[in-house]
Amino acid sequence: MTSYKKMTKEELTELSKQLNKEYSEAKAKGLTLDMSRGKPAAIQLDLSDRLLDVMTGTSDFKTENGMDVRNYGALDGIPEAKKLLADLMQVDAANVFVGGNSSLNLMYILVSNAMSLGILGNTPWGKLEKVKFLCPAPGYDRHFAITELFGIEMITIPMSEEGPDMDMVEQYVNHDETIKGIWCVPKYSNPQGYTYSDGTVKRFAALKPAAKDFRIFWDNAYAIHDLYDKGDNLLEIFAECKKNGNENLVYEFCSTSKITFAGAGIAGMAASEENMAEIKKIMGIQTIGYDKINQLAHVRYFKDAAGVCEYMKKHADMLRPKFEAVLNTFERELSGLEIGEWTKPNGGYFISFESLEGCAKAIVAKCKEAGVTLTGAGATYPYKNDPKDSNIRIAPSFPTEEEMKLAAELFVLCVKLVSVEKLLENC
Amino acid sequence: MTSYKKMTKEELTELSKQLNKEYSEAKAKGLTLDMSRGKPAAIQLDLSDRLLDVMTGTSDFKTENGMDVRNYGALDGIPEAKKLLADLMQVDAANVFVGGNSSLNLMYILVSNAMSLGILGNTPWGKLEKVKFLCPAPGYDRHFAITELFGIEMITIPMSEEGPDMDMVEQYVNHDETIKGIWCVPKYSNPQGYTYSDGTVKRFAALKPAAKDFRIFWDNAYAIHDLYDKGDNLLEIFAECKKNGNENLVYEFCSTSKITFAGAGIAGMAASEENMAEIKKIMGIQTIGYDKINQLAHVRYFKDAAGVCEYMKKHADMLRPKFEAVLNTFERELSGLEIGEWTKPNGGYFISFESLEGCAKAIVAKCKEAGVTLTGAGATYPYKNDPKDSNIRIAPSFPTEEEMKLAAELFVLCVKLVSVEKLLENC
Repeated sequence: MTSYKKMTKEELTELSKQLNKEYSEAKAKGLTLDMSRGKPAAIQLDLSDRLLDVMTGTSDFKTENGMDVRNYGALDGIPEAKKLLADLMQVDAANVFVGGNSSLNLMYILVSNAMSLGILGNTPWGKLEKVKFLCPAPGYDRHFAITELFGIEMITIPMSEEGPDMDMVEQYVNHDETIKGIWCVPKYSNPQGYTYSDGTVKRFAALKPAAKDFRIFWDNAYAIHDLYDKGDNLLEIFAECKKNGNENLVYEFCSTSKITFAGAGIAGMAASEENMAEIKKIMGIQTIGYDKINQLAHVRYFKDAAGVCEYMKKHADMLRPKFEAVLNTFERELSGLEIGEWTKPNGGYFISFESLEGCAKAIVAKCKEAGVTLTGAGATYPYKNDPKDSNIRIAPSFPTEEEMKLAAELFVLCVKLVSVEKLLENC
Repeated sequence: MTSYKKMTKEELTELSKQLNKEYSEAKAKGLTLDMSRGKPAAIQLDLSDRLLDVMTGTSDFKTENGMDVRNYGALDGIPEAKKLLADLMQVDAANVFVGGNSSLNLMYILVSNAMSLGILGNTPWGKLEKVKFLCPAPGYDRHFAITELFGIEMITIPMSEEGPDMDMVEQYVNHDETIKGIWCVPKYSNPQGYTYSDGTVKRFAALKPAAKDFRIFWDNAYAIHDLYDKGDNLLEIFAECKKNGNENLVYEFCSTSKITFAGAGIAGMAASEENMAEIKKIMGIQTIGYDKINQLAHVRYFKDAAGVCEYMKKHADMLRPKFEAVLNTFERELSGLEIGEWTKPNGGYFISFESLEGCAKAIVAKCKEAGVTLTGAGATYPYKNDPKDSNIRIAPSFPTEEEMKLAAELFVLCVKLVSVEKLLENC
């Protein structure tokens, strides 16, 4: 296909007319599709309905260490749930805390407590003049919303297929003690689907932060969320940290939100012995313990981590066609046009699209006008401010495959339309 | 019975010998009973086992407004769960937020956010020189632990059968802007089982705080937890606040921890429109939403608030004999001795015992030595510091009725023993 960039003004004008006509027709179809969030589809949730049956009619509510899951207690989770999440994160159960239904909530708690109470005896962040976080971007908007809420200054770090720009990360972290944290989605990053390379993980684990209370927020949300039999491999970071005597550096998070129920799974975090002792001390004041019935139900349903991994193949079978519907449409309709680039992830929940500069907001608006809701343009950057206005996050999970095809076709049409207009402006 | 206070030194010495002998025999029984916390007994938890069945085999996961409870969303709870908790708190559903399994956690969140973010545009408490809370005491140790964690200065307010000393509360709240909050368990107070009188509630609702961000933490944990058909009546506070244009004054909390499952119920809070808007804004950053499957299960199980109240009679039938085992033993063994006073609650989870001054720690230690664990002496006061060392919280719910009788007998023996020794010291 001819690159739009090589077209004359006349050709672009003609093309614009044709695309506008197509857009009018598309609008007339009256689509109403939501691709804004990484929500599992109903068929994926159906997969786990029987999890709700495993406690049915039972009178056995005891954990392996004899605790009644219906009563108070077990602040850090029941042993078998700690083991399950530990195995999924490839860490030791002693280093795991099982929380409620939301890993995001665990992240919030750790930032919030660092703000008002401080980490391991260091000055509470809220009492410091300046606190900054590094934000690899495009990234996850809900991470950025937490740091923004607390008035933590966010610094954008560019992403590549290897992960965040580690030269920049090292420069900041090792020399600036106002840098207190970094948000990472190390596997199938949100929104690109990149997995940090071994080299990147090793460099993270070897950081020598100027701030003693600098922490990596390692949001391993898609640890086992492969789309294909051969998924990406992420180096386990705590083992690397250990080599450098650096285990306090990382808080890791995971959840079953995209394994069982998005709203009613179990979430966990992993931390070094010293960090975990502090986490438990503070957690013990903010709650008596999280829902242990749901923890036990999850363990009885899956048996073990191998059971979970096997289960993920069913999710992959449901998600793959949707991802491919998008990618095939992009390939067919956009390749060679030089008006956009996109990632081709092996897992996770998103595809990242880079439009021509200054086009993302307009593309999202055009899609919305024709009934397809995308994540707001800019949302993938700190302060919702994408400096190039070019990144769009595509979330293919929620619509059906058929809907996804329609949505992708509308999307590429909007990309073409907005790009042509942008190119005409610059003629 | 003869008052110990009227006994001669010789009589007390003789009595001491006899009591020590009885204590040795009691110790030899090798009891191991835990009365330390307000934990429901297993038979109470059994009551709710069928709650786990209501979602079994169903394919109907939709709320009344068409939301799939298995997926993300509904930050403030599903409409029917909001309604259920609203009816239990006698407030409007629009003013209710349904959280996870812990109302204590909701309280922590509000204090924590007030510390680092401030309330309705006021300076975050963490940035102020001095922040103080009023703590009616004896009170709930987990409340005090939250304020202590954040370095909030706690001021003890004496309690009577009417509730906290309102002269003192008004004096502090209306004239000192460093007073930012007060912890209240207004019905069946922990540990006395007192219910605030109408006059007390009206005076709370009519406070004119010096600090605009002063809040009453109204922990209505035992709202419907009567032991007898005729329970205490607590005036609904928001309606009173409304009369004074004072609705922002109160955060109210409730949960089903002592209705369904102590570790896996649903918790909620009620607040004015303005407070609720702020709560939702911040909550929307710390989580996508709490477990809605459990919310829907609770609603389907109970149908409505009347269903919950009916259900509470079963709990009462299980708890009443245990309370009476304690109270009858106290009455039989201690009345007239002038070595202790105790409350006789119509509901809730506790009995409060006042020993002679300087005896509580020793009594708890003696009980522990003979195998009965009580709540630590002092725990019912800020900083775990009971100035008179006289208050002991009795939690009769967890042991069986038979065990409770044994424990109460041991307790009164320890009270006698320690009291005699104390009186001998002063001879």
